[in-house]
Amino acid sequence: MNTFGHNLRLTTFGESHGPAIGGIIDGMPPGIAIDLGEVQHQLDRRRPGQSDITTSRVEADRVEILSGMLDGTTTGTPIGFTIANTSHRSGDYDEMRHNFRPSHADYTYTAKYGLRDHRGGGRASARETAARVVGGAFARQVLSLHGISIVAYTSQIGHIALPPHHATPATTDIIDSNPVRCPDQQTARLMHRLILDTKQAGDSLGGIVSCIVTGLPPGVGEPIFGKLQASLAAAMMSIPAAKGFDYGMGFAGAACLGSEMIDQFDITPDNTITTLTNHSGGIQGGISNGMPVTMRVAFKPVATLLRELPTVNDRHERVTIHARGRHDPCVVPRAVPIVEAMAALAILDAMLSSRLI
Amino acid sequence: MNTFGHNLRLTTFGESHGPAIGGIIDGMPPGIAIDLGEVQHQLDRRRPGQSDITTSRVEADRVEILSGMLDGTTTGTPIGFTIANTSHRSGDYDEMRHNFRPSHADYTYTAKYGLRDHRGGGRASARETAARVVGGAFARQVLSLHGISIVAYTSQIGHIALPPHHATPATTDIIDSNPVRCPDQQTARLMHRLILDTKQAGDSLGGIVSCIVTGLPPGVGEPIFGKLQASLAAAMMSIPAAKGFDYGMGFAGAACLGSEMIDQFDITPDNTITTLTNHSGGIQGGISNGMPVTMRVAFKPVATLLRELPTVNDRHERVTIHARGRHDPCVVPRAVPIVEAMAALAILDAMLSSRLI
Amino acid sequence: MNTFGHNLRLTTFGESHGPAIGGIIDGMPPGIAIDLGEVQHQLDRRRPGQSDITTSRVEADRVEILSGMLDGTTTGTPIGFTIANTSHRSGDYDEMRHNFRPSHADYTYTAKYGLRDHRGGGRASARETAARVVGGAFARQVLSLHGISIVAYTSQIGHIALPPHHATPATTDIIDSNPVRCPDQQTARLMHRLILDTKQAGDSLGGIVSCIVTGLPPGVGEPIFGKLQASLAAAMMSIPAAKGFDYGMGFAGAACLGSEMIDQFDITPDNTITTLTNHSGGIQGGISNGMPVTMRVAFKPVATLLRELPTVNDRHERVTIHARGRHDPCVVPRAVPIVEAMAALAILDAMLSSRLI
Amino acid sequence: MNTFGHNLRLTTFGESHGPAIGGIIDGMPPGIAIDLGEVQHQLDRRRPGQSDITTSRVEADRVEILSGMLDGTTTGTPIGFTIANTSHRSGDYDEMRHNFRPSHADYTYTAKYGLRDHRGGGRASARETAARVVGGAFARQVLSLHGISIVAYTSQIGHIALPPHHATPATTDIIDSNPVRCPDQQTARLMHRLILDTKQAGDSLGGIVSCIVTGLPPGVGEPIFGKLQASLAAAMMSIPAAKGFDYGMGFAGAACLGSEMIDQFDITPDNTITTLTNHSGGIQGGISNGMPVTMRVAFKPVATLLRELPTVNDRHERVTIHARGRHDPCVVPRAVPIVEAMAALAILDAMLSSRLI
Repeated sequence: MNTFGHNLRLTTFGESHGPAIGGIIDGMPPGIAIDLGEVQHQLDRRRPGQSDITTSRVEADRVEILSGMLDGTTTGTPIGFTIANTSHRSGDYDEMRHNFRPSHADYTYTAKYGLRDHRGGGRASARETAARVVGGAFARQVLSLHGISIVAYTSQIGHIALPPHHATPATTDIIDSNPVRCPDQQTARLMHRLILDTKQAGDSLGGIVSCIVTGLPPGVGEPIFGKLQASLAAAMMSIPAAKGFDYGMGFAGAACLGSEMIDQFDITPDNTITTLTNHSGGIQGGISNGMPVTMRVAFKPVATLLRELPTVNDRHERVTIHARGRHDPCVVPRAVPIVEAMAALAILDAMLSSRLI
Repeated sequence: MNTFGHNLRLTTFGESHGPAIGGIIDGMPPGIAIDLGEVQHQLDRRRPGQSDITTSRVEADRVEILSGMLDGTTTGTPIGFTIANTSHRSGDYDEMRHNFRPSHADYTYTAKYGLRDHRGGGRASARETAARVVGGAFARQVLSLHGISIVAYTSQIGHIALPPHHATPATTDIIDSNPVRCPDQQTARLMHRLILDTKQAGDSLGGIVSCIVTGLPPGVGEPIFGKLQASLAAAMMSIPAAKGFDYGMGFAGAACLGSEMIDQFDITPDNTITTLTNHSGGIQGGISNGMPVTMRVAFKPVATLLRELPTVNDRHERVTIHARGRHDPCVVPRAVPIVEAMAALAILDAMLSSRLI
Repeated sequence: MNTFGHNLRLTTFGESHGPAIGGIIDGMPPGIAIDLGEVQHQLDRRRPGQSDITTSRVEADRVEILSGMLDGTTTGTPIGFTIANTSHRSGDYDEMRHNFRPSHADYTYTAKYGLRDHRGGGRASARETAARVVGGAFARQVLSLHGISIVAYTSQIGHIALPPHHATPATTDIIDSNPVRCPDQQTARLMHRLILDTKQAGDSLGGIVSCIVTGLPPGVGEPIFGKLQASLAAAMMSIPAAKGFDYGMGFAGAACLGSEMIDQFDITPDNTITTLTNHSGGIQGGISNGMPVTMRVAFKPVATLLRELPTVNDRHERVTIHARGRHDPCVVPRAVPIVEAMAALAILDAMLSSRLI
Repeated sequence: MNTFGHNLRLTTFGESHGPAIGGIIDGMPPGIAIDLGEVQHQLDRRRPGQSDITTSRVEADRVEILSGMLDGTTTGTPIGFTIANTSHRSGDYDEMRHNFRPSHADYTYTAKYGLRDHRGGGRASARETAARVVGGAFARQVLSLHGISIVAYTSQIGHIALPPHHATPATTDIIDSNPVRCPDQQTARLMHRLILDTKQAGDSLGGIVSCIVTGLPPGVGEPIFGKLQASLAAAMMSIPAAKGFDYGMGFAGAACLGSEMIDQFDITPDNTITTLTNHSGGIQGGISNGMPVTMRVAFKPVATLLRELPTVNDRHERVTIHARGRHDPCVVPRAVPIVEAMAALAILDAMLSSRLI
């Protein structure tokens, strides 16, 4: 299933080492002037080779829009797009044709399909997420017209977490001002150092991305199986390496008393209903209440270690492999724009289904 | 959106205080002999009034099967079913017609629809989950024929958690032998005591339900947006009061090194590929690898406190309410069969989509 | 697949001889006052036993609404409903347990599922359409608020067809004033006589139902696979015994020249764009143009003949059967409200997807 | 909605005058060796400029496969593909920016979206069907491995129809041996002459395409809304200019007696259940019975006439237009491979949903 969404649908295709990856965005509202430079900027945020803590694979990652626009404006018809794969060195992966890298998808794809594209992870490569970033970049431009913004940031790398008193970050500028995308500059430095040291050791790190949606009106989301948090959870858990999702107080709320978790209602001076706290994370009964939607996504450390590893192959023999290729020691900073993209797709879909756009 | 699933679809209907709730299970494989006593038993596990820590609302919760079976066997046509509402005391809720209970769905339903069924939470009542338990009870009987079993249990209530060394529980018998459904009897007693004390104080508790799927063959789940963990996350996050989902090492894995998280492959004596550890929680690249699928669902404390609470009403006035009705101080023990039901629905759907049933 | 629709979804369940049939309508707009008497009236129009040309099976066909309404108004949550089966004489069908009636679904259900509910056709019984009529009755009340009306009528029975010069019928009153539901009273008498004679001969008749949707605004429907005519065709071809669908000039248009088929645009005095003719049947490029949507559905003669018939059984033996049960010699008059119901469901779904409701 | 199918899904994008059209085929079974020359051959059958009766617009229509294959074999991941638009002369369409061509989609797209891509019909151009032919070409290669073949042919052009006694055509070779794709060479000559004469007169013609699916096993299709004929009808009615669909005896069957329409069962020498006739067109109760599935699709004459036509523009003024561009006088011959493609997509989807592949 390579389609996400009900009334806004992103369908993606592409392997790491084919001629191109790409996708189709179906259900875009018509008449929206799209800033393609901003779409490309989002892709650049995800691109490898941005800093000393990302893979040295260099991809231009230029998006080409093939349809659905006229004179810079959406027409309501599907947006087809491609991103060429320019830097694939498939030779790096010949050893992987028959070997199953541990904690990768090599074995499960083979178990499912009987064969797999072994070059660079094939369809399971995180390269696929570039198409999501394009979809999300279109979606967030629509949301922006309705006063809705989505900001994600790194809140934990390995055992280094943002201090609990850290306030909500104001802008993407602050977040993007350091290579780990953490809004607290001191914590960012510690995280950066940890990543470099871990890379040096041939090991890898996981972490947590936090995301905040502001400006969402009340009434977005649907009861029961269409709950906003269910859609967001599916969106986030579809990202490679994501291992957990929570929203509002999340897992921490499981240890609280009800009296500590209740968000008391109040009336603002302009006669709007609001809540004094936001333990709920902006959602009640699956439907937005007008407060910011807050969520977290946990990412595991990438499984590619630059060392020798014992494993098995497709002839059920024990073998030893040594990862070559080019890999990130920590995907979390590059996951930030992906989390934003998936949030934007889920939120715009919910806005459309809730008939608020 | 009141439908869950792609090739196995459960659609539910019903409010807490209407004549009945119910649903339709579409896509059930034909020729399956269904033990309706076992279906009723699962409903009984979710039923209110089971012990001193659940609401005193007593519902018979008898499921009536209206279609899709002949002589005790599924025919492949949709299973329609109803569960009568017998114990609704709508008078308890007259005060709630115009007031918005804090951290309930009263305000968001009104914001979305312009009106709501205020009696007992209406569609947002957890009573709706009874229909899911029926759906799950059918699904797990199919899975059982393929050697797949699903066991959930309470692993945390408030700040009391299962000790980390706790082994996987063997059977549902052990879990159901205490009212909190915790497989460790000593921890269960502490949890039970905490719930009674909290109830006495008019407060409420959250917690965590863990769930393990065993017997799943490799190859279940689909790439990208159909990842098994994405489907399970959507399933779990659609349960009322669920605030978080993770699988495998989950959020804890975000703090680990890659070298600590990798699951090394091995070959079993009968020439099957397996892994020496299961940090991955049985899924790689969205597809099962044959190891147990392990996951957790965090639940917030219920928002109904048996005390006076300040809030607002639909005329934007500040008011004070006092919950009457009958409520659980902690929904976690009753959430155990619901988590199992949603897991069963998601897993059977994935088995069908993966063409393994 | 027992669900129809994308943003308005009807899911149905039920066999001819189980305790009840029913369904769930999901996606109903909230705040709509529903006239349940009118819903029952539509069911009565479909009910058997209405006249001397319909089956003598008498069913009360009382719809019971179980959810989704408060004080006579929709709440936006799903409408669950049941219709009890009161007149099933399953004994009539014992002979059919192993025999395959020719041109019925007995063999194909058995081929597909390995077993079937043989009593009265089981799920393949046209009794299932009662649930569609309920769904359609809700949908048309919403459409009516937007000035959209749907009228179907019998335009052909056997070889007797409405004269080509016959004008569009004004009201359902005229159509329902005769048992064949033909708006031309003289043609209706001929059709009635033909049905009685054919019934006497133990044979059966097919025919054509025409349907007109008026008041539909321009812009309803979607490009490519969501074309309005594609949705209407799927709706109509899902009705038992339907063998063909066309719209506008339809099959007759295949023999015309382009110059005969073009609908010239014009501007009305109130500055609206209209067309001088309506060969297109109100749809261009899959999207409504504001003119009436006109379509036809062809029905085959029912396959149940009151005579001895040679056939085969599930042991692959040649046998002779004699239909007992109670059957219509011609289903076309009772298909009229079913065609209207399916049109209403498809049109309301398209209105919602096109964001016009 | 630019996606067709449930378990096999084709999503398409592209306008007549953008850089490219294309699509994504999701759900292709893995391990299928695909003959890309045959895929290109199907595209060539649909291509403009094939003969003196098709538009002189010359498109290379080269399909480029971007993903989902390794060493000529499907991998189970989505097939992304593009077809470059090389021959767009957008200048031809400047006059059309504000004018609504009668019986085209210009007005309805503008009514729906507020704007449209006016160049060559934009998304409503039949050029979009090239992507369907690619999807169908993949699907039919899978079906072919299961002994299922799909053959369509022209059975009527204008008032010239195949003689009723015409036997089923044996092969595509015979059909493709004349430019109208009619299996009866004498009728083909009359049709060819009629098209040339009509083209000369600046007028256009419609017609009927018949299609036969052979080799389909019993049990394909689903009850109620997933009936095989409903899926085929939606598939065919989504083709530009299609105005009607029927199967088996279709509209003609509406005038028959039941005793004339019944298909008597028989047992073949190899103990298979079959029917002596095939009035049903291979489907009973929505499910295939093992006999050939026969259907017809009616096409209207194209609305582009090479003459002056009065119409209106988007300022609601009456204007006169004169079609330039390059157009077919009759699309029916080129619709033959499109009908086959849509049949292949619908049938493979049904085979997958019915778990027969």
